[in-house]
Amino acid sequence: MPIDSGDTAWMLVAGSLVLLMIPALGLFESGLLRKKNAVSVFMQIFFGLALLSVMWFVFGFSLAFGPDESGGLIGNMDWVFLKGVPWDEALDYAPTIPGVLFVKFQLMFAAITPLLLTGTIAERMKFSSFIIFIASWSILIYYPLVHWVWGGGWLAELGVVDFAGGIVIHTSVGMGALAAAIVLGRRRFFGPAIEIPHSIPLAVTGSALLWLGWFGFNAGSALASGSLAGNTVIVTHMASSVSALIWVGLSWMRTGKPSVVAAVNGAIAGLAGITPASGYVSVEHSFVIGIAIGIASYSGIIIFKEKLKIDDALDVSSVHGVAGIIGSLAIGIFASKLVNPGGPNGLLFGNPEQLGIQAIGVGVAAALGFCGTWIIMKVLDFLVGVRVSPEVEDAGLDISEHAERAYADEEEFKLDMDTYVDELEEKDEFFFNKK
Amino acid sequence: MPIDSGDTAWMLVAGSLVLLMIPALGLFESGLLRKKNAVSVFMQIFFGLALLSVMWFVFGFSLAFGPDESGGLIGNMDWVFLKGVPWDEALDYAPTIPGVLFVKFQLMFAAITPLLLTGTIAERMKFSSFIIFIASWSILIYYPLVHWVWGGGWLAELGVVDFAGGIVIHTSVGMGALAAAIVLGRRRFFGPAIEIPHSIPLAVTGSALLWLGWFGFNAGSALASGSLAGNTVIVTHMASSVSALIWVGLSWMRTGKPSVVAAVNGAIAGLAGITPASGYVSVEHSFVIGIAIGIASYSGIIIFKEKLKIDDALDVSSVHGVAGIIGSLAIGIFASKLVNPGGPNGLLFGNPEQLGIQAIGVGVAAALGFCGTWIIMKVLDFLVGVRVSPEVEDAGLDISEHAERAYADEEEFKLDMDTYVDELEEKDEFFFNKK
Amino acid sequence: MPIDSGDTAWMLVAGSLVLLMIPALGLFESGLLRKKNAVSVFMQIFFGLALLSVMWFVFGFSLAFGPDESGGLIGNMDWVFLKGVPWDEALDYAPTIPGVLFVKFQLMFAAITPLLLTGTIAERMKFSSFIIFIASWSILIYYPLVHWVWGGGWLAELGVVDFAGGIVIHTSVGMGALAAAIVLGRRRFFGPAIEIPHSIPLAVTGSALLWLGWFGFNAGSALASGSLAGNTVIVTHMASSVSALIWVGLSWMRTGKPSVVAAVNGAIAGLAGITPASGYVSVEHSFVIGIAIGIASYSGIIIFKEKLKIDDALDVSSVHGVAGIIGSLAIGIFASKLVNPGGPNGLLFGNPEQLGIQAIGVGVAAALGFCGTWIIMKVLDFLVGVRVSPEVEDAGLDISEHAERAYADEEEFKLDMDTYVDELEEKDEFFFNKK
Repeated sequence: MPIDSGDTAWMLVAGSLVLLMIPALGLFESGLLRKKNAVSVFMQIFFGLALLSVMWFVFGFSLAFGPDESGGLIGNMDWVFLKGVPWDEALDYAPTIPGVLFVKFQLMFAAITPLLLTGTIAERMKFSSFIIFIASWSILIYYPLVHWVWGGGWLAELGVVDFAGGIVIHTSVGMGALAAAIVLGRRRFFGPAIEIPHSIPLAVTGSALLWLGWFGFNAGSALASGSLAGNTVIVTHMASSVSALIWVGLSWMRTGKPSVVAAVNGAIAGLAGITPASGYVSVEHSFVIGIAIGIASYSGIIIFKEKLKIDDALDVSSVHGVAGIIGSLAIGIFASKLVNPGGPNGLLFGNPEQLGIQAIGVGVAAALGFCGTWIIMKVLDFLVGVRVSPEVEDAGLDISEHAERAYADEEEFKLDMDTYVDELEEKDEFFFNKK
Repeated sequence: MPIDSGDTAWMLVAGSLVLLMIPALGLFESGLLRKKNAVSVFMQIFFGLALLSVMWFVFGFSLAFGPDESGGLIGNMDWVFLKGVPWDEALDYAPTIPGVLFVKFQLMFAAITPLLLTGTIAERMKFSSFIIFIASWSILIYYPLVHWVWGGGWLAELGVVDFAGGIVIHTSVGMGALAAAIVLGRRRFFGPAIEIPHSIPLAVTGSALLWLGWFGFNAGSALASGSLAGNTVIVTHMASSVSALIWVGLSWMRTGKPSVVAAVNGAIAGLAGITPASGYVSVEHSFVIGIAIGIASYSGIIIFKEKLKIDDALDVSSVHGVAGIIGSLAIGIFASKLVNPGGPNGLLFGNPEQLGIQAIGVGVAAALGFCGTWIIMKVLDFLVGVRVSPEVEDAGLDISEHAERAYADEEEFKLDMDTYVDELEEKDEFFFNKK
Repeated sequence: MPIDSGDTAWMLVAGSLVLLMIPALGLFESGLLRKKNAVSVFMQIFFGLALLSVMWFVFGFSLAFGPDESGGLIGNMDWVFLKGVPWDEALDYAPTIPGVLFVKFQLMFAAITPLLLTGTIAERMKFSSFIIFIASWSILIYYPLVHWVWGGGWLAELGVVDFAGGIVIHTSVGMGALAAAIVLGRRRFFGPAIEIPHSIPLAVTGSALLWLGWFGFNAGSALASGSLAGNTVIVTHMASSVSALIWVGLSWMRTGKPSVVAAVNGAIAGLAGITPASGYVSVEHSFVIGIAIGIASYSGIIIFKEKLKIDDALDVSSVHGVAGIIGSLAIGIFASKLVNPGGPNGLLFGNPEQLGIQAIGVGVAAALGFCGTWIIMKVLDFLVGVRVSPEVEDAGLDISEHAERAYADEEEFKLDMDTYVDELEEKDEFFFNKK
C-alpha cells in the first residue's frame, strides 16, 4: 500500500502527543511529591527519555520488532541503528505510514514505559542506580514483551491481543512497581503526612497533558487515521470520565470531601485501564469497563498501600497495574469484530476462549514484570546500592543528588553559591588543563 | 461520502485540542484567583468534565443532535448511549469523518461550555450546588440551544449561523454569567485587593494552552481538513492578536503600565469573539472585528465590574459574552460566500437581512442564558443554597470544601494530618465493615 | 496540484504547535530567571506575539515571500494585508495546502524568531525599547533573510539551503544575542548567584512544550504530510536526545552532579541545532550531528559566558547560535538526495561544494545578525535608552515596569492596593471625562 497523507498526518501528531506524555508524567508526579524531591523526578524523566530514545535507535527497535530467527522469543540485530528501516516506504506493521514513523511512535512507548516506575521509586532511589535500572528493565523485560505481543512473538501466536499496551506496558510496569517498592523499602516516616502534594497546580497540569497525550497513545495505536482511531478516542475518553467519577465518589464517601487528586488519579486509571481494550470495544462497553477499572484501581490502593503498607509512592501498581489488568481481561469479554474486524471476539460475542488467552498474556506479563523487576533491583542493590542514605532522603534528593532546588529565591542562594563557585573554578582549571 | 483519512486526522486532533482547553481553563482561572481557592476551580473543572462527558454520552447528544420529532425544539431519544451512532460511517452533520468522532468533538463543546461559568462563580459557590448547577444548565440551556442552531432546529431554520459557538456558547454563557453573579452576590471584600492573581505563571500557562486549543475549537468546526479550516486558523489568530494589542493599549493608558494579565485576557476575548465568525469571514475583516471585540470586551469589564459592581469574578460576561455577541453580529456584516460557500453573505456582500437574523439568534441566546441561569440559581438557592458560609469563604474553598491545599510544605502539614488520619481510620473501619 | 486533506491536516496542526512554542519559550525562560522578573518575560513574549503577528499580516509576509522585483533582495508589496493570497488555492511555496495556511505557518516563525532574543536581554531591558527593538529587528534582519533563503532570494540562488531555520533563525538570532548582550551590558551582580532558576517546574514545563512544538516546527517545514515529515521527526528527536545526554554528561563531569537544567538546555540545543538539517539527513547522521551540537553548544556557554563574561542571560548565543551554525554546516557534510530528493548532497555524498555554500549562508546570517542587532541596539540606546535604571533592575522589572508580581499572597497586597486604587480612580475620571 502507498503511504497515505492522512494516516501519516495523524501518526505524526500521535507520536508527538505521546512524547508530551513523558514530561507530563514528570509534572504530574513532581506535583504530587514533596518539594524537596520535585527536581529529581524531572531529571529521572528527562534523562530517561534521552537515554531510552538512544537505546531504542541503537538496538531496542531491532530486538523488539526486528526479523525473528528465534522462534518467537526476540528479534535479531538486522535493524540496529535503524539500518534497513525505510523512511519512504512502510513496514508491514503499519502499511500506510513511513517505516521510520512507526519506529518513532514505538520509541515513545519504549521511553515512557520504564519511566512510569519513577512514580514508585520516588524520593529514595539513587540516580546512578536508576539509570542502570531503566536500561536493564528495557532490555530484560520491555523489549522481549513487546516482541512477544506486538512483534509477532509467541504470545501473539497464542492469540493474545493488546491494543495500546495494557499487557505490554501497564501490567508489567504495575507488577514491577510492587517488586521495586518491596526491594527499595518504605520511605522514612511513611504515612499520610509525607503524601501531601507539594503543588496541586503542577500535578493538574501534568494530568491534563497526560489526558491529551493519551489520545495519541491509544488512537495512534490504530497506526492510521479513520474509523478505528475515531472509535478509540471516544472509548478512551468515556472510560476515563467514568473512572474519574468513581474515584471522586469513593473518596468522597471515605474522606467526606471531594478531592481533585482523586479526580485526576481516577482519570489516569481510566486511561491506563482502557488502553488495551480501546481498539476492540464499543463506547457502550467502555462505560462498563470504566466502572470496573475505577472500582478496582481505587481498591488496589487501599490494599497495597493502606493494608499491605507497600510504599509504591504514587500507586503505579494500582493506577497502572490493576487498571491495566482489568482492561486486558475485558478484551476477553467485550471485544467485538464489529468494532475491529482485525481483532478477536470476546465472551459476549461468542468467543469465551479469548478470556483465557488474555489471562495467559496478563499472567506472563505480570510474572515477568514482578520477578524481573525484583531480580534487577536485588542485583543492583548488591552491586551499587539502590537507596540513598537516610540523611540524603531527609534533605531531599534535589539538593543532594542534583544540587538543584525546584524553587529558589535570589536572596537565600547568595551565600550558598560562594562555595559552589569556588569548587566550580577548581574543576574548571582541571577541565581546561589550566595550571 | 466515504470517510477521508485527512479529514479524520484533523478531527482526531481538533477534538483532543478542545479537550486540552478544559484543564487549560482551570489553569488560567486558578492562576488569576487567590491561592486559597486555587484547588476548587480545578475540582469544578475536572469533575465537571467527567460528569458532562457522561451526560453527553447517555442522553445529551441525542437531545442536541438526535432526530427531531418536535418541530425544531429538541432531539428525540433515539441516540441515547450513542445507540445507532455509527463508528465506521459518517453522520450527515460531518459527512467525511466517523459518526462517533463527531460525537466526541461536540462532547468537548458540551463539556467546556457550562464550565466557562466557573470563572464567574469562583471563590464562593458550594461544590455540591455547582454539580447540580452545571447539570441543569446543560439540560435546560445548552442542549436546546445547540439543537436550535446546530441540530437543525428553529433558529437554524430562520437562517441563524454560528460557526463555532458565539451564540450557542459565548453569548449564552456570558449573559448567564451576569445572572449567576447577581444571584450569588459579591465576594466578601470585593474590590481590587482580592483580584490579585496568585500565580501569573499558572494563568499564562493556561492561556497558552487555551490559545492552542482554540485552533482545534474553531478550525475543527469546519468538521474537515482543507481550505475552510485553513482560513479559520488565520482568521482566529489575527483577531486574537489584534484584541490582545487593544487590551494592552487600553490598560496601559488607564493604569500607566502594560500588563500581561490584560494581554492574555485580550487574547482570549479575541478568540472567543471571533469564534462564531471564524468560518465565514476573511482575514482582512477579522482584523477589523478583532479591534471591535477588543474595545467592546474591555469596556464591558469597566461597565459590569467597575460601574455596576457585578462580581463576575473573572469577567466571563465581558471576555466571553460581550466578545461573543460582537462576533455573532459581525457575521451579519462581514460574512461572505467567497470565503464559505456554505454560509451566508452579510451586509457588506449585499445581504443586510443577515444582520437582523443574527441579532435574533443573539437575542434568544442572551435571553435564555440570562433568564435560564437566573432561574436555575434561584431554585438551587432555595433548595440547597448556592453560597458557602462567610467563614468558609474567608478560609478558602480549598481547605473547607476539598480538604486540599494548592501548595504544601512538608513541615506545616505534619500536625494537621494527625486529626485527618484518625478520622480516616474511623471511616475505614466503617467502609470495610470492620468492628 | 489540488489541496490535499492529509497535508492540510498536518499543517493545521504543525502551525498550532509552533504557536504553542511561543508561550512555551516564555515559561522556559521565566522559570530560569529570578522571581522578580518572571512576569516581564511573559509580557515581552505575549505582546511580541500579538505585535509580530499583525506586522506579518500587514506587510511582513509580502516583504519576505511576495513577488520579487528587486533581483533577490526583498519582496514587493503586492501581498500586504494578504491581498491576493488565496485561501482556497495553494501558493507555489507549498503546493498542496491553502495559501493562507502557508502564511500562518510562516507567521509563527516570524513571531518566535525575534522573541528568542528575550532570553538574552532578560532582566534589564526597558519594555518600551523592547517593542521597538523586535519590530526593527523583524524589518531589518528577519524579513530580508527569509527572503534571501526561503523567498527565492540571492542566497537561495547560490544554493544555500536551510530546512527549518538554522541559518535564517538560529544563526541570526544567536549572533544577534551576542551583540545585544554586549550593548546592553551585564546585569548587576552578574555571576552564578543571579543565575539560579526561580522555578524549575516552570522551566521544565516550558521545555516540554518546546520539545512538542519543535516537531511541528521541523516536520511542518516539509509543508506536507508524508515520508519527509516522518523522517524529520525521528531525526529531530534523535539529535535532541543525544545532545541532552552530552550536556548532562559534561555538566556532571564539571560540577559533580547531574542537573536537570543541563538536560533541558541540552535538549533544546539539540532541537535548535538539527533544525536546518532535519529535512536533509538520515537518522544515523543526526546521531552524529547531535553529538557535535551538544559538545559545541555546551562549550559555547563556557566561552561566551564564563570566559568572555558576556551576559547573554539564558545563553541564546550558544543554545541557538552555536547549535544552529553546527547544524547548518552539517548539511554540507551529511545531506543526501536519498533522504530528500529536493535537497542537495553533501560532502559525504560526493558534493563537497555544498559545505562552502552553507558556510556562505551562515556567514551572511551571522554578520547580518550581529551587526544589525548591534546597530539597532545602539540607535535605540541613543534615542530612548535600552536599559532600565539600577533601581528598577534591583527591584525587578515585574513590579517596576508592569505593576505585576508573578506570585502574590492576598495579605501582602491589601496595603499596596490602596495607592493603586486611588490612582486608578483618578485616571478613570480622566478616561471617562468625568470631572
